[in-house]
Amino acid sequence: MKVALLGPEGTYTHQAAAKYFEDLQPDFCSTIREVFNSETKVKFVPVENSLGGGVSDTVELLKSEDVNITAEVHLEIQHALISDEENIKDIEKVKSHPQALTQSQEIIEKNDWSQEETGSTAAAVEQLEDGEAAIASEIAAEINDKNILKKSVQDTETNKTRFFVLNGDPEPEEKTALVLEPGEDRPGLLHAMLSCFAGHQVNLTHIQSRPTKKQLGEYYFYVEAQAAGQKLENTVKCLETYAKVKKLGEYSLIGEHN
Amino acid sequence: MKVALLGPEGTYTHQAAAKYFEDLQPDFCSTIREVFNSETKVKFVPVENSLGGGVSDTVELLKSEDVNITAEVHLEIQHALISDEENIKDIEKVKSHPQALTQSQEIIEKNDWSQEETGSTAAAVEQLEDGEAAIASEIAAEINDKNILKKSVQDTETNKTRFFVLNGDPEPEEKTALVLEPGEDRPGLLHAMLSCFAGHQVNLTHIQSRPTKKQLGEYYFYVEAQAAGQKLENTVKCLETYAKVKKLGEYSLIGEHN
Repeated sequence: MKVALLGPEGTYTHQAAAKYFEDLQPDFCSTIREVFNSETKVKFVPVENSLGGGVSDTVELLKSEDVNITAEVHLEIQHALISDEENIKDIEKVKSHPQALTQSQEIIEKNDWSQEETGSTAAAVEQLEDGEAAIASEIAAEINDKNILKKSVQDTETNKTRFFVLNGDPEPEEKTALVLEPGEDRPGLLHAMLSCFAGHQVNLTHIQSRPTKKQLGEYYFYVEAQAAGQKLENTVKCLETYAKVKKLGEYSLIGEHN
Repeated sequence: MKVALLGPEGTYTHQAAAKYFEDLQPDFCSTIREVFNSETKVKFVPVENSLGGGVSDTVELLKSEDVNITAEVHLEIQHALISDEENIKDIEKVKSHPQALTQSQEIIEKNDWSQEETGSTAAAVEQLEDGEAAIASEIAAEINDKNILKKSVQDTETNKTRFFVLNGDPEPEEKTALVLEPGEDRPGLLHAMLSCFAGHQVNLTHIQSRPTKKQLGEYYFYVEAQAAGQKLENTVKCLETYAKVKKLGEYSLIGEHN
């Protein structure tokens, strides 16, 4: 299946997409906005704690563009130490995306390596020089024909990364993502809106406030709820008494328990 | 004043810090974690929509480290088009941090420039070659002695970036940042916690849920409230009946209205 996603080749987004889509034909884009604007119908975008950057861009674009979330995919981030060198003792410097460096501080500090930031984990592999190692996905080592000196070099506390499939094939619906735009700000307003979820016993799994950009101090809320279809319908009706509600999709959750 | 902040020289973090601290002596660090670990007592970190990356790192580190927020500083992001070339017609390619590229798509698409991602906006300026321009802060052009071909090239919808001063001089206290860790998950729990803010008529200005990393599906909440001191005390007492509460600081808001 042809899918638009954030490049370059070999990022974690690429690795996660290759895991979800059986026959992936990637249409690599250079920004999240390009993914949304691509003529390729099906899209694959990071939504939380990604290494590819642009997660707040994803929320903004979900709000402004006309797409439908059809699945949420989880990937456990496993960083590999990748190099042209064959021996870890010959490494003096590591390069990677800033978040990947932050997530691998234990091994970097233990070895007293110097650090250089790159625009993506995949770019770090492409730009390797003598005495250097990159922290990136195993798929990036394969693609660039480099050595994996050590697998799983991240500190133990590394998060999963979450991705959305947009405009994909229908799947069983378990979750719903919504944008709530109250159009006013007063103490207790969020509490009032959340009474709709509490009253209908719908569990929230994610919430974030975002500035509307229309006016200073005016916010909208991006929320994900553990319900879909009929069960969510009354919650949405209730929310509409407080805010403009945009439904971003009802979708399936893939890979939560593996 | 000596202040630890995210480098390299010439990023927006640097520009915002130079605006806030009269006599800034920057201690540049290469990751947000290094800023928190630095022996320099006063620190300056991005907390929302930064171009320097690592905003989710900031929230994680505020939660785990022992620091005190003393001020919140806002900076309007104004991207400049920077080059060794003297004429905008000689530009074929632009490079910058992915978020800066996303925020400047109108001018990039109008001119049909190709794009390259770098680890920071400042790195883009340092790595300029013939026929290239960087999208970065004006301070980065000054430092590197480059030409500013055009000021304010961002699309109109660009956000402000928010920063925190940590362990700085006391200022009048207007806002409070809190971490709420419920230690359980049930429908209606967030609603119950927010009843403390609603009941005491305290306005929330920011909320986000974050995975605890202890257990799948377990979340904590990072919130900012428009109250401090006595007014907030009863709200915190109420919150403590639902969750472990960590107060990250009571602080002043700088530059909201300019």
